[in-house]
Amino acid sequence: MIYMDNAAMVKPTEGVIEAVTDAMRYYWYNPSSSYGKGKDSKCGVEWAREQVAKLIGADPSEIHFTSGATESANILLNSLCASGDVYITAVEHPCVANTGGDNVGILPVDKYGLIYSSELPVVGDEFGTTTLFIIAANNEIGTIQPLNFIGNNICKNRGFLLASDLTQAFGHIPINVKDLNISFAFGSGQKIGGLSGCGWLYVAKEHEHLISPLITGGEQDMFKGGTENITGIIALGEASFEVSKSLDETIKYETELRDYMINKILTEIPDTVLIGHPTQRLPNNVNIGFGGCDSESIVQYLDMYDICCSAGSACHTKTVEPSATLRALRLPTKYINGSVRFTLSKDNTKEEIDEVVGVLKQFYASKNKDV
Amino acid sequence: MIYMDNAAMVKPTEGVIEAVTDAMRYYWYNPSSSYGKGKDSKCGVEWAREQVAKLIGADPSEIHFTSGATESANILLNSLCASGDVYITAVEHPCVANTGGDNVGILPVDKYGLIYSSELPVVGDEFGTTTLFIIAANNEIGTIQPLNFIGNNICKNRGFLLASDLTQAFGHIPINVKDLNISFAFGSGQKIGGLSGCGWLYVAKEHEHLISPLITGGEQDMFKGGTENITGIIALGEASFEVSKSLDETIKYETELRDYMINKILTEIPDTVLIGHPTQRLPNNVNIGFGGCDSESIVQYLDMYDICCSAGSACHTKTVEPSATLRALRLPTKYINGSVRFTLSKDNTKEEIDEVVGVLKQFYASKNKDV
Repeated sequence: MIYMDNAAMVKPTEGVIEAVTDAMRYYWYNPSSSYGKGKDSKCGVEWAREQVAKLIGADPSEIHFTSGATESANILLNSLCASGDVYITAVEHPCVANTGGDNVGILPVDKYGLIYSSELPVVGDEFGTTTLFIIAANNEIGTIQPLNFIGNNICKNRGFLLASDLTQAFGHIPINVKDLNISFAFGSGQKIGGLSGCGWLYVAKEHEHLISPLITGGEQDMFKGGTENITGIIALGEASFEVSKSLDETIKYETELRDYMINKILTEIPDTVLIGHPTQRLPNNVNIGFGGCDSESIVQYLDMYDICCSAGSACHTKTVEPSATLRALRLPTKYINGSVRFTLSKDNTKEEIDEVVGVLKQFYASKNKDV
Repeated sequence: MIYMDNAAMVKPTEGVIEAVTDAMRYYWYNPSSSYGKGKDSKCGVEWAREQVAKLIGADPSEIHFTSGATESANILLNSLCASGDVYITAVEHPCVANTGGDNVGILPVDKYGLIYSSELPVVGDEFGTTTLFIIAANNEIGTIQPLNFIGNNICKNRGFLLASDLTQAFGHIPINVKDLNISFAFGSGQKIGGLSGCGWLYVAKEHEHLISPLITGGEQDMFKGGTENITGIIALGEASFEVSKSLDETIKYETELRDYMINKILTEIPDTVLIGHPTQRLPNNVNIGFGGCDSESIVQYLDMYDICCSAGSACHTKTVEPSATLRALRLPTKYINGSVRFTLSKDNTKEEIDEVVGVLKQFYASKNKDV
């Protein structure tokens, strides 16, 4: 099997599997209970909180566990749309775009998916907070936004708050929320080798008063009621710890693989384009527009050879039309309809890439025979 | 260790640990992806849905996975409070009581925690739906409400809808939502040996139009966006499957243990009362009011002997005052303040109960020495 869908799910590491199994055997007690065994669970949860906090340069008390990036985004949008104006980029994940709906302004992007700084709002909400939701790195096309400029120039100078979807950036590129002047951020465990069903929400201490929980009940967390997802939290902590140990090497290796794959496809397969920015992109993201092809047919053909990748954005495959992100780029339709995303990991090799490109060529050959 | 806090968390079974480990190794792919491996994950999720459905007599398409009973309750209350009048019992879990807040009417209960049928609403909302939230079995005192009468008489005759928190009942007593005329229900994995962080929501097909998701984004589920919590769902499915195999024997065994423990405490320890209904109660729930004692001191004393139980309701131990459920019973304060909950499982034995009662006697002896 050749797995190249790491933007959807990263295989849980052996360390995560072991930590989760230990949690199920030894730390399954209610972290809110007052007996000693419960405090073991609590201790595990707090250890995990520290690992997540460290990876983004936050204080552990600013990290809140949720059921995933989608819940985190919903908490923020519900609260912030009620406290003032909210703007989002045209390339936000559906958990932001669909949730924001008509309540938010849209910041357009260029053909690489980068926002235009000239299109950023000039004045904020007179009566409340103005928040910009800027996805750090897009899940489909991998484009990395200039957060440093937006956070430390635009937001600081105009008194805006910066909220950033770090789901794809977290554990994949270095991010420090304090350095970037990010007030709110979020991510998910399954994008770094943790488990799906558990994510995190960062709320800067000084802006806590702006945010309300979406799910209420017990008082386990300021922003989420309900018993903590212990195994998911432990997995997220362990995965955060692991990626932090070798982030630089991983980035170096993945970038090399990425560029190798991009060059190979663009030179060896006719009428192909790279979708997203050529250099300002995630180290593991390869998104190719195969001109005149149907992306789902490519994904299905590759699947026959046990190669896993995705067409459009894999998070919402029930929809047939191209994703909002792809449409926002205003590329020729033939590339949009033929967009296939390959997202790599440090477990992939150049040999695998050669094999994938070989199968892609076969696809073209079989396609031409059909015609 | 003697573990008697099964209303908070049930130890994951070996079958669950194995199923979750398998999921982490082999079925960690995105269930929404279109390649074959993703369909394996999807298949696991659907298998789990069937197990939950079977255990409550619902159709699998009526079962939706959430991050737990708390999220499920929030989804229902948000939707139903917007569509008409909502009444809840005075002994609902905080995920219903706190979430409903001032938007719901309260149905009082007697000293056993049973609702008065005479206090049920007589007429419904003229313009919308009237929903009664009746917790099937209370998490603290174990009292089981007469759902058959409420569902098939009150609700059917008056055109009310019945929503029921099955968190403690699910997998502990037989429940058939169709037989009981329940339209909405929910529960959590960790109460039957699954994992915390994953629960379910039942919405009867004919009332789907009344419910909206709380968390939006991708279209993974009608009532919840975000990648499915695969490991949590597999754990919930496996645990549902396991409890269904031996529900009758478990009930028989636990009831015998429960009555043995209640009788032993009431006869051997002075000034103690049973809190909750003497017979209409969960097979595994023992809640004792230790007159003149502080419940937290008892829990801490027992913890020194590695005995796990809880004071008040363990889900929200940050609060110091007695829970709303205990207050609703209007028992003498000395019993409320000395309320300790022991919740048993089929792994407990009479020998363990003897040991716990022995330690309780020691607690009294040391307490009297102090005075």
